[in-house]
Amino acid sequence: MIMKKIHNILYGKETYEISIPKDVSELSAISNIQVVTCGFNSKGEQLRAPRVVRVGLFQHQHPVSTVTPIKETRDALFKLAREAIELAFKGGVNIFCFQEAWNMPFAFCTREKSPWCEYAESAEHGPTTLFLAELAKRYNMVIISPILERDDLHCETIWNTAVVIDNHGDYLGKHRKNHIPRVGDFNESTYYLEGNTGHPVFETDYGKIAINICYGRHHPLNWLGFGINGAEIVFNPSATVGKLSEPLWGIEARNAAIANGYFTCAINRVGTEIFPNEFTSGNGKPAHKDFGHFYGSSYVAAPNGSRSPGLSRTKNGLLIAELDLNLCRQVKDHWGFQMTQRLEMYADLLRSAIAPEFIPQVIRKRDIKQNKGCSGKTQ
Amino acid sequence: MIMKKIHNILYGKETYEISIPKDVSELSAISNIQVVTCGFNSKGEQLRAPRVVRVGLFQHQHPVSTVTPIKETRDALFKLAREAIELAFKGGVNIFCFQEAWNMPFAFCTREKSPWCEYAESAEHGPTTLFLAELAKRYNMVIISPILERDDLHCETIWNTAVVIDNHGDYLGKHRKNHIPRVGDFNESTYYLEGNTGHPVFETDYGKIAINICYGRHHPLNWLGFGINGAEIVFNPSATVGKLSEPLWGIEARNAAIANGYFTCAINRVGTEIFPNEFTSGNGKPAHKDFGHFYGSSYVAAPNGSRSPGLSRTKNGLLIAELDLNLCRQVKDHWGFQMTQRLEMYADLLRSAIAPEFIPQVIRKRDIKQNKGCSGKTQ
Repeated sequence: MIMKKIHNILYGKETYEISIPKDVSELSAISNIQVVTCGFNSKGEQLRAPRVVRVGLFQHQHPVSTVTPIKETRDALFKLAREAIELAFKGGVNIFCFQEAWNMPFAFCTREKSPWCEYAESAEHGPTTLFLAELAKRYNMVIISPILERDDLHCETIWNTAVVIDNHGDYLGKHRKNHIPRVGDFNESTYYLEGNTGHPVFETDYGKIAINICYGRHHPLNWLGFGINGAEIVFNPSATVGKLSEPLWGIEARNAAIANGYFTCAINRVGTEIFPNEFTSGNGKPAHKDFGHFYGSSYVAAPNGSRSPGLSRTKNGLLIAELDLNLCRQVKDHWGFQMTQRLEMYADLLRSAIAPEFIPQVIRKRDIKQNKGCSGKTQ
Repeated sequence: MIMKKIHNILYGKETYEISIPKDVSELSAISNIQVVTCGFNSKGEQLRAPRVVRVGLFQHQHPVSTVTPIKETRDALFKLAREAIELAFKGGVNIFCFQEAWNMPFAFCTREKSPWCEYAESAEHGPTTLFLAELAKRYNMVIISPILERDDLHCETIWNTAVVIDNHGDYLGKHRKNHIPRVGDFNESTYYLEGNTGHPVFETDYGKIAINICYGRHHPLNWLGFGINGAEIVFNPSATVGKLSEPLWGIEARNAAIANGYFTCAINRVGTEIFPNEFTSGNGKPAHKDFGHFYGSSYVAAPNGSRSPGLSRTKNGLLIAELDLNLCRQVKDHWGFQMTQRLEMYADLLRSAIAPEFIPQVIRKRDIKQNKGCSGKTQ
């Protein structure tokens, strides 16, 4: 009883266990992918049937050495992806999402361009998209594939991009990471700049989804953008390491779910990636060859603030969560955050804040006294 | 070792114990106010001396029955306030903040206007401000006093307002609650509407401070507004009950500290307040006379994501936290969230979102197909 109360305070309303066929656990053992499941409760409505979907969050270690040739690396990643997607299919997953830059080592710590830039591919018809399109069609599954994108249309520039493939195997669209870090070993702006695709929401057979890539989770405005455009589930494919961000991990995506009335799905890489050449981290410490530990811990948060258990900090894992998308509107109606958010006031504030001559609203005693001296009026 | 690691993951970087004179614990026992202390670590800098300040967060039960006459209630509240402020002074507090509407029962559940509206006072020279101004001067302490405000200048309207009194005993300014709830028993819009004072930051001898009142903590834009105007500490005086918001309590103010690079101080009422006449809660349940349990649990969060222990869920308490305000800029330099926040893009987005003819950015297959049909181009 007391444990239940503590659980509710820390993690919100209880979730339920969802039924998964037996062969999922068999397959899970064979492929060495830990499976965790979780369902979120919602209320019945008179005019809408429940809109229940299952999402699959897949976190994985880079399966080969970082010096493995690119084609061989891709083969190993595709093999792993196929296993995870089959497992997800057997677990009833409708929308599947990989971690950030899932099809390569997370090499941005090195600041080396070669060979890492060679991993970049066309979002529309690169080998990863073509490979996943086939699986998406076969398994009737929407697949979100965060990759390093090569934009052949625009000077061959590189982007950090999430590709959305629909459950008919068709390319639906892409979103480019809006906020790019310059912190620790996250030297990503050496490779690509801030995304230019806005805050697209993808209307799929399984609901309206969006993708907030990695560092964008630190930006409440980025989350808000997807909310404004009507997202019901926002995926946050990430690659982040323990020392930097772990105390923030359980807070940010969950806060976004609460504030915006949608589900959030936070996915992190797992394991330690070691690179061939040493590099420094801008922290005064000696040169070294590894990025630090990607701590996994992927989880789902609901608009009412409840959250799922997390996946492991060290192992490959698939989190299967059952969501009734009707919960989004139910929570919005209950709390009223959207109704009371006063966007007009903030549109004005942001507009004035970006002006070079911006004067912050600061109340100082000396200003009050001066006003008194001049006109006899107080502020 | 393992416990330390878990602590760091859940609560961020370790805090330290601060030294408090012996007579604080004696006085704490006499006045029945639990004292908890906590200090946050920062780094030394070459060009700035540490700017260490102590904040005092005071949470209290309404000390008398809700039917006690107003003058008598005020006397009891003033007595309690005096004890708490003396305790804070002995503990070295520089900035002291009460809970929301601290000078009255939280009667907005009743929807009755009488006698509750009689608690409203002038922010500038009402009895509560005059009473606290004397203590502020005597103890060289900035005091934040969230009250029900009567605006005599403008048609005697009522507001939910935080008054800032500086450490010289002078009225510095006020802030009116920006976001007003319409949920559960929080029938506040029956009494007052959305605040019209923007997002003021008060420059005091102890740093730049702001106040995000209660329900405003659910609004990331409200927190952002105070950040844009340069706040270093944002207080969140609240009155919120267990069933409604407790799983959200540890998340929201902490997320705001991380996202905006300032300290946040979340203060909640304590106890259960019982009213003379029964009322309903808009949830189909029978009429009743109490608001539910205000769960206290006041805490401080730092810009690096670490947090203090919480005060009790049931008792009067004073949380004394020592903060080096230099930490704010240190964390901003480290993480770069402000540098990378792209306000211009969001100013445009918010401006377009409020238009009646707003078209959300939604990507649908049928639109792509239509585009193909017309021009042969994909989106």
